[in-house]
Amino acid sequence: MTSSIQDQALKQVADIFDQHVPFHNLLGLDIKHYDINGVEVVIKMKPELIGNIHQNILHGGVTATLLDVVGGLTAFAGLVASRDDWTVEELQQRLTTLGTIDMRVDFLRPGRGETFTGTGTVIRAGNRVSVCKMELHNELGTHIAFGTGTYMVG
Amino acid sequence: MTSSIQDQALKQVADIFDQHVPFHNLLGLDIKHYDINGVEVVIKMKPELIGNIHQNILHGGVTATLLDVVGGLTAFAGLVASRDDWTVEELQQRLTTLGTIDMRVDFLRPGRGETFTGTGTVIRAGNRVSVCKMELHNELGTHIAFGTGTYMVG
Amino acid sequence: MTSSIQDQALKQVADIFDQHVPFHNLLGLDIKHYDINGVEVVIKMKPELIGNIHQNILHGGVTATLLDVVGGLTAFAGLVASRDDWTVEELQQRLTTLGTIDMRVDFLRPGRGETFTGTGTVIRAGNRVSVCKMELHNELGTHIAFGTGTYMVG
Amino acid sequence: MTSSIQDQALKQVADIFDQHVPFHNLLGLDIKHYDINGVEVVIKMKPELIGNIHQNILHGGVTATLLDVVGGLTAFAGLVASRDDWTVEELQQRLTTLGTIDMRVDFLRPGRGETFTGTGTVIRAGNRVSVCKMELHNELGTHIAFGTGTYMVG
Repeated sequence: MTSSIQDQALKQVADIFDQHVPFHNLLGLDIKHYDINGVEVVIKMKPELIGNIHQNILHGGVTATLLDVVGGLTAFAGLVASRDDWTVEELQQRLTTLGTIDMRVDFLRPGRGETFTGTGTVIRAGNRVSVCKMELHNELGTHIAFGTGTYMVG
Repeated sequence: MTSSIQDQALKQVADIFDQHVPFHNLLGLDIKHYDINGVEVVIKMKPELIGNIHQNILHGGVTATLLDVVGGLTAFAGLVASRDDWTVEELQQRLTTLGTIDMRVDFLRPGRGETFTGTGTVIRAGNRVSVCKMELHNELGTHIAFGTGTYMVG
Repeated sequence: MTSSIQDQALKQVADIFDQHVPFHNLLGLDIKHYDINGVEVVIKMKPELIGNIHQNILHGGVTATLLDVVGGLTAFAGLVASRDDWTVEELQQRLTTLGTIDMRVDFLRPGRGETFTGTGTVIRAGNRVSVCKMELHNELGTHIAFGTGTYMVG
Repeated sequence: MTSSIQDQALKQVADIFDQHVPFHNLLGLDIKHYDINGVEVVIKMKPELIGNIHQNILHGGVTATLLDVVGGLTAFAGLVASRDDWTVEELQQRLTTLGTIDMRVDFLRPGRGETFTGTGTVIRAGNRVSVCKMELHNELGTHIAFGTGTYMVG
């Protein structure tokens, strides 16, 4: 069971990432789901996100953005889940530290589709540095990109 | 000396990347300079590109996008430079193949600044696969991000 | 069902990697299992492979080596599996091309244990370039390292 | 000018890495030079390090090992250089924390040669996490491999 402090922290972060990050608004990035077990971030195709007008595919930069956002949220959820006695202030403090150190993106297939969903898993859960793997699929389940990211969490 | 076919191919590519890629237009991405010796890609800060409203810094996804575009253009310039007897058709064909296989981005410092400039160098020049390293600096010369990308060129 | 040409090619590759690569012999690297569905590569701990004498843990270079070997074998198995009409000569030719373009290694936990097993999966199956993800576990199932590698296969 | 505490710390680390890491002894890895300005790590070709007997080239795992060692030493030198008021105990403590979080290796050219020299530069100097880039050249100056590594330093 999660504490209400954990739940509230993630809800607040989801709200910020969903509503108050200007670049996320520009892309139409949507935090579909976010709790202690994971995150689902969605981008719907629209003409401005196209990278190749002949083939109508998502720009690789959009893919990289989505994977990076998924990785950061996944790392933070993992940190929140690692203890059940966080104070509100401690989690606020950790959130200000949250940042990507490095990320690898593997572009596996062309970004064709209508709805792109990113999900992630923590593979190294540290108190200061966490590592996540991330995946991007389209609405048909095609695996379009894979990512590995190292995040500062404390 | 470069042949006029080489020059024209790069000029055409610069024009496409500068004007006819919807996502580049959304970001305001500008191909400042592109010839056989390299590329300079510029993005000017604007409110929609911000990732952190408290700190006013460029979103990491914009950084990743800029480095990826620099890498692709650098790889293609290297390919064009590798022979001086290309036909127009051969280069057109190669351009349709151009794509990122994988990329690593290292976020070295917060993306503060007014003008962000990306440059790159080929470190593995292949006939099918090339590897480039890329850098992003702001107008003060601060090194904000580093990238390494593997590109399909044939 | 696999053809006997596919089976024989993988058997021959397993034999080379297991017996005829000097550096594999130095490490005691053992190709435990190799067929069209995947590979299992094992290294047993021995004093010469230690990286930290105080903590008795496997050197990161051994981890990187094992993941790279797993990735190459996984990519080649994927190529062999992609067609059932290969000739012996074609596969011999492809084997001479096989090589790592780039690899990322994530060191998740200290390399403690007696027996380290590497396994892999193809995530991008190309006719020229394939991408694999690889994992290293010890005999207790602890996930010690994760890798992502890009391989030339044609 | 460096303090004697800084000098002694790096001298002690060079001695450990040169003499007291079993896997370095197995490879014949030699810390040629190590001070606050950088490191030079050398491996001489010998039959046991070969990865491809037909082409007589260094195994990629040896390349990865050498780059990782260079990165770790470079990160630690950068940390030592970042302050001139370290105590011996503080630096001893930091040394026990030193470890690779993740590393990317780009294999640029076949590992042909007699003497392989690795060098590195810090590109992100943190108090907890540093990022380095590393290069491997042979005795003719051929650029054989490039690396980027993220290291825990505190």
